[in-house]
Amino acid sequence: GTPFDPTNDPHRRYNPLLGEWVLVSPHRAKRPWQGASEEPNNEQKPSYDSTCYLCPTNTRVNGEVNPDYKGTFVFQNDFAALKQDTEQASEKKGLFQFETEQGCSRVICFSPDHSKTLPELSDEERVDVVNTWKAQTAELGETYRWVQVFENKGSMMGCSNPHPHGQVWAQQHVPTDPAKKVVQLQQYFGDNGTPMLLDYAEQEVAKQERVVCQNDDWVVVVPYWAAWPFETLLLPRFDVQSMHMLSDSQSLSLAKIIGEITAKYDNLFETSFPYSMGWHSAPFDSEAHPEWTLHAHFFPPLLRSASVRKFMVGYEMMAEAQRDLTPEQAADRLKALSTVHYKKREN
Amino acid sequence: GTPFDPTNDPHRRYNPLLGEWVLVSPHRAKRPWQGASEEPNNEQKPSYDSTCYLCPTNTRVNGEVNPDYKGTFVFQNDFAALKQDTEQASEKKGLFQFETEQGCSRVICFSPDHSKTLPELSDEERVDVVNTWKAQTAELGETYRWVQVFENKGSMMGCSNPHPHGQVWAQQHVPTDPAKKVVQLQQYFGDNGTPMLLDYAEQEVAKQERVVCQNDDWVVVVPYWAAWPFETLLLPRFDVQSMHMLSDSQSLSLAKIIGEITAKYDNLFETSFPYSMGWHSAPFDSEAHPEWTLHAHFFPPLLRSASVRKFMVGYEMMAEAQRDLTPEQAADRLKALSTVHYKKREN
Ligand SMILES: O=P(O)(O)O[C@H]1O[C@H](CO)[C@@H](O)[C@H](O)[C@H]1O
Ligand SMILES: O=P(O)(O)O[C@H]1O[C@H](CO)[C@@H](O)[C@H](O)[C@H]1O
Repeated sequence: GTPFDPTNDPHRRYNPLLGEWVLVSPHRAKRPWQGASEEPNNEQKPSYDSTCYLCPTNTRVNGEVNPDYKGTFVFQNDFAALKQDTEQASEKKGLFQFETEQGCSRVICFSPDHSKTLPELSDEERVDVVNTWKAQTAELGETYRWVQVFENKGSMMGCSNPHPHGQVWAQQHVPTDPAKKVVQLQQYFGDNGTPMLLDYAEQEVAKQERVVCQNDDWVVVVPYWAAWPFETLLLPRFDVQSMHMLSDSQSLSLAKIIGEITAKYDNLFETSFPYSMGWHSAPFDSEAHPEWTLHAHFFPPLLRSASVRKFMVGYEMMAEAQRDLTPEQAADRLKALSTVHYKKREN
Repeated sequence: GTPFDPTNDPHRRYNPLLGEWVLVSPHRAKRPWQGASEEPNNEQKPSYDSTCYLCPTNTRVNGEVNPDYKGTFVFQNDFAALKQDTEQASEKKGLFQFETEQGCSRVICFSPDHSKTLPELSDEERVDVVNTWKAQTAELGETYRWVQVFENKGSMMGCSNPHPHGQVWAQQHVPTDPAKKVVQLQQYFGDNGTPMLLDYAEQEVAKQERVVCQNDDWVVVVPYWAAWPFETLLLPRFDVQSMHMLSDSQSLSLAKIIGEITAKYDNLFETSFPYSMGWHSAPFDSEAHPEWTLHAHFFPPLLRSASVRKFMVGYEMMAEAQRDLTPEQAADRLKALSTVHYKKREN
């Protein structure tokens, strides 16, 4: 037979962070699409929207009035998924096991300007966002074992308000996926004596097959095991376990590379690119975590255009994640794109 | 403080099938929704559509002509994610691990009638579907370790054609989620000497807190650890490892209960209810699987109405699944609904 060709032949790749496999079916990208198409979001928004509950000086559903904030603004989620005072209870035997959860969820507005998104802010404004993530992580890590900083961008990703914002949820227990990472990273550290993700970043930088952009401190890759079409992993090139440990210069280089990857994302289909992104700092469990490397995931759903997305359904829900183009093909496309936002080019 | 109240207080529930946790935040159901709304699919379709590539006698993209079939109809997926002749290769060390995959994917048309869905077919027509699943499972299990029968229903679930159909994908390796189940079910069987899911079905039938419908052979429950708002688990009440082992009378009682749960689903929001459903038979690896119980999952995305869905994004992608109403609340609503399809009631 013809020798195995990863750009054409079905194969599975191993995600060493979660200990799970992904099915790669590159030839499937050729199929015609007759299914759902999404509404791309290209409408120009005003800098201030009087009906937006995140804009400065506006009143929220619960009657509170937002301050006339100038940089970032953090407040308790008015419909939080977690509460700090849940009475403790649990059942850990048999088929009906539960444990109560204490925690909190907050909203982080990135900017007072309703019309802007992360790639449209300046480096200074993005440093302000990074500093807010750092402060939230440090503060909530005092009380909770897990601090989950994330952003849902775009209505396709369940975001209910276009004002630039993310969230932070903090909780008592380490959730399912991070708990898998603890196991996998500790295993690797035990076997190799080095943090897996630092080794991985170095190997990707050397190979340059999946690197999308990099600077002296950070690198963005489409990971070898990416599940979403244009998924990326943002990794430090220095040993760091948690968001709040970043120095000022590392925060600035982070603000810059976030500007680059998110501008490339918007440029890919010339649309405000939807995604969920999130940060994984080490658990705050009063143990050292030399195995852990701070990192961020971007999980974007779009596949072929601003209106055709990948559906993780059926086979993917029952069996395992499946992708239609190789991570190398996705990285090539993202790498080739400008870091200047398309809206700035047009003007 | 007030004692723990599962209908109001955040807690995590343990999914013993996957060894993973789900965050339940029931009070969050009260939040107003200002995000994306979906287009409900209530259009009346014709029995035959000349532009549909699944209707009898029509020509498909690859030039093949569908026969004038009367019951079910199975053909190789024209854009298969798996191929039977992939040249074998693998790398199992380091951070870039892969293995090639051999397999096949087929499409299963449930009926020649373009306008019908599973709940709108007769019991006899649904028995025909069950018998097709049985035959496909038996045949593909001769060659492949894993046979994944599933259905994506509705454009919200990535289904690109409304003609009633499902798929079967078969492959060499046991995929990620089924592999987790093997571990969990074997562990339970080792500890208890009984199949976990048979014990679970019996305990749910005794409790009647999450049972949606049942007959002498089968029971449908919203599992204690359900992630999707109206997720259900369809379980046999007798010892059986694989689809193809069902007797004729068990196939008939299965056809009946599938008719009931899918009619209830459509009745919930008086819309053709989108979901992914799939069957897990034991792996075909020439070992006995006394720990395994054949079962099906229904994963439906709708939350509040025909147009407001649950988004598994952000926190859910980074941390763990999260739900906004309790499984007991979901089961109560589904249980109360008629098994007579709303379209039949109207006429
Ligand atoms: O094969 P289809 O129906 O065209 O495609 C659909 O089901 C597949 C298997 O669940 C998914 O991988 C696709 O994302 C989805 O759109
Ligand atoms: O809190 P929001 O932005 O209203 O809600 C969004 O993010 C949450 C956390 O990722 C998800 O649970 C919701 O499904 C999603 O709609």
